[in-house]
Formats: sequence, structure tokens, C-alpha cells
Amino acid sequence: MTQSLDNAQIEALVRRAVRAIVNNDLSSAAQPPGWVDGKPNLRVSISARHVHLSDEHVETLFGPGATLTPMKGLYQDGFFAAEQTVMIVGPKKRMLPSVRVLGPTRPFSQVELAFTDSISLGLDIPIRHSGDIDGTPGCVMVGPAGTIQLDKGVIRAARHVHMNQSDAQFYGVKKGDFMDLKITSPQCTITMSDVLVRADETSKLEVHIDTDEGNACNLDSATKIELIPSGGGCGCKAH
Amino acid sequence: MTQSLDNAQIEALVRRAVRAIVNNDLSSAAQPPGWVDGKPNLRVSISARHVHLSDEHVETLFGPGATLTPMKGLYQDGFFAAEQTVMIVGPKKRMLPSVRVLGPTRPFSQVELAFTDSISLGLDIPIRHSGDIDGTPGCVMVGPAGTIQLDKGVIRAARHVHMNQSDAQFYGVKKGDFMDLKITSPQCTITMSDVLVRADETSKLEVHIDTDEGNACNLDSATKIELIPSGGGCGCKAH
Repeated sequence: MTQSLDNAQIEALVRRAVRAIVNNDLSSAAQPPGWVDGKPNLRVSISARHVHLSDEHVETLFGPGATLTPMKGLYQDGFFAAEQTVMIVGPKKRMLPSVRVLGPTRPFSQVELAFTDSISLGLDIPIRHSGDIDGTPGCVMVGPAGTIQLDKGVIRAARHVHMNQSDAQFYGVKKGDFMDLKITSPQCTITMSDVLVRADETSKLEVHIDTDEGNACNLDSATKIELIPSGGGCGCKAH
Repeated sequence: MTQSLDNAQIEALVRRAVRAIVNNDLSSAAQPPGWVDGKPNLRVSISARHVHLSDEHVETLFGPGATLTPMKGLYQDGFFAAEQTVMIVGPKKRMLPSVRVLGPTRPFSQVELAFTDSISLGLDIPIRHSGDIDGTPGCVMVGPAGTIQLDKGVIRAARHVHMNQSDAQFYGVKKGDFMDLKITSPQCTITMSDVLVRADETSKLEVHIDTDEGNACNLDSATKIELIPSGGGCGCKAH
């Protein structure tokens, strides 16, 4: 989990420390929000298959007046795995019996699967960033109180990294940039490119990959995780 | 599917061409076995979950005197997917109903799964190279004529590349070396390290990865595949 610092990162750290001392704000100097030991606390999370639902669809699937019941908070504040699950049925009547609903609700429902899931469901799904669902396949969602024929919204979520502006400054990246994620794991080290930066004011630094990606590198056994701006190095010894 | 040549590779090609001309063996100069357009024909294959069986286990599972029936030849000459499948049962009675048997038979039976498979089966399996099965978990194999309690032999096959000596010379590697495999694929490019070289006299150049690895990079959509000696470059623009 160690990370090396380049000059720009060291400069950013020093600048922040000096500014905080000038402002007599030592706690900020010691630790920007979500940082540990003077660095962003890099976390990589596997997003297992899940659905996001609109308020209307929650009521259709779980009954009039139903709302999502938080079961477990996610790493990002305000987001949670709900107690509710739905059955997802594909075009060949193959199904995934119990897919977790994540909250809070959204304007539009969306189903996020790994490729392995989509193959078992008989669906050919595109890689999309969350919310970009035009032209994607649909499916049937079945809950205890009703069924939804979803016309679109089944995607494989593209790799992405949530971060706040302090993190973005640390890495020298901005919203919309791409980064590489190197996961060193015994006998199955992988470098994933195309990791989209989703930077805002409040997010904690967290890379989201899916179960195929997490299993490909056996994330649980990883000994080192590095997040690198694309083109700025690849984690090999030449850099 | 394009590959760039370094100086050592160009030298090897020229040396081979000159030697062949001297020996009046123009066909060899034009095309070493399995090469296309003066280069090894790099192929990456996904090994879906499968089992290898001993002759004794074939008879136990499929009946006295039973032998494997080839259904489809694999890329490597002499190897085949058999018509036979077995049910694999894990410790929690979860099962994979139909796992393909590959032939020919071997001295010891072995079950090769992706991590996604092993999780669904309730088994914690190590990454091993084929044949290295001491200390690995077992399972129950069920066939139409009988059942085997396998005490060990369930593994996740480590990434590897089969090649012949011409291929090894082209890449400047030898048996036991490791290589990197970069798969450029829209929105999910991956570089896999730890690809073991298994070089012999007769194999065709072929990387074997499992379904998790193949799905992580959506291999079917790949636009470029590069095989690079470890430490000798990483496919990034700096090399």
C-alpha cells in the first residue's frame, strides 16, 4: 500500500502545510480530510453486481410507500447497501436471483453487472460510466410486490476513482482525466488503464472496479496498490 | 494485434533469414512454424473452467473401459475438449453442474477454475502452475457412472504462455521467464504481469488466461495484444 511521491506531490504537500501554519490551522496541515500519514488513503473497492432504483421503481417492486432500508453504509458518506434485493431476468429467461439494491434512490434505475454476470444472464452489455445509459440493453426486475420492464440501463460500470480536490492536487489530475491502477498481487499482478477521475469536493479517495477485475488480480491478496496518472509512469522499474 | 520489433528481435530474424538462404531453405526463411508475416502469431486464449482426468478416474466416472471422446481440437496439437463433462461439488454442497473434461488423460486429475467459479463453489483455491497441486484443496467429481473424492488438485491456473524455441528467440526469453501481456481494449485496457514462459520444441505461441482475466479486459473486443519480457518494457510510451 506504499506510494512514492514525485516532486509535484511533495510541493503540494509543503504548500498545504505552509498555508495551514500561516492560517494557524495545524490540524489541516497534519491531515487533509481522509488522508493518513500525510498522503491520500488509497482504497480499492470491488463493486459486486447491484442496482440503483428510482423512487417510483422502489414502490412498484416493494409496495406502495416503500423506501429503501439501509443495511450497511458504503465507504462514501451517505451511500448504503439496502436490505432490499431484486431478481434480474435476462432475455433468455436466465436470471440472477438476488441482486443488492444500493441507496439512495436516483432519477433513473440502472443495473451494474460484471461481464461474467452478463454472460450468465445472456446479455451483451456495454461498458459505460454511471448515468450514461442511452442505447444500453434492458432487463426485467422482479421484487416481492411487482415487476419492472426496464427498457435500458444494464451496463458494466467503467473503472473509475472517486476523489476530492486535495486528492486530485496530490496526484496532479482533474475530473475527466484517466489514471492507471497497478495492483501487485502474488502471481497475478495487473495494471488497469482507463480509470476515470471523478473528482468533487467531498468524496473520499476510492477506486471502484468490478468483480471480474477484482478476481483477475485477487485483490484480497494484493501487497501493493498504486494509482498513477496515465502516461505519467506505469509502475515498472524504468520510471 | 500489431507488435513492434526491438533490435534483438530484428537481429534474430535477419540471422534466421541469412542462415536459411545459406542452407537454400527459403521456406524456413519466409516462415518459421506457426509464424505469420515474419512474426510469431500471438494468440491469447481464455481457458474456461475445466478438468483433467487420469485414465482410472475416467473409468470410475464414465464406466469400465470408458475413454475420452474428442469433441473439438484445441489450438495446441493433440489436445482436445472432450464430449464428457463432470459435476464438481464443493465443501458446502454448492456445485458446478457441467465442467468440461480436456484430453488427453494425465497421470493425476486436476480441476482448473477461475476465482469467480471457486467463490460460487465455496472453495478457497491457490494460484498454481499446472501439475503443482500439493497442498491444494480437493472436491467431489460426479459422473454418470460414479463419483470421485479428489483429495487435492483444485487450482486457479497461473497465467502462462506456450511457445516454441523460435518464439522464445524472437522475444528473447527462455522457459521459466516471466512476461507481461498488454491487452488494449476500449475502456478496459489491462497489462497482466507474471505470465510464465513454457517453451518447448513443438508448442504454438499461445497465452492462456482464465475467464476472470479475459472478462476483466473484455478480450473479445481487444484491438491490440502485446507480449513483452518483464522488465523489458511495459507498453507505455516511455519505452
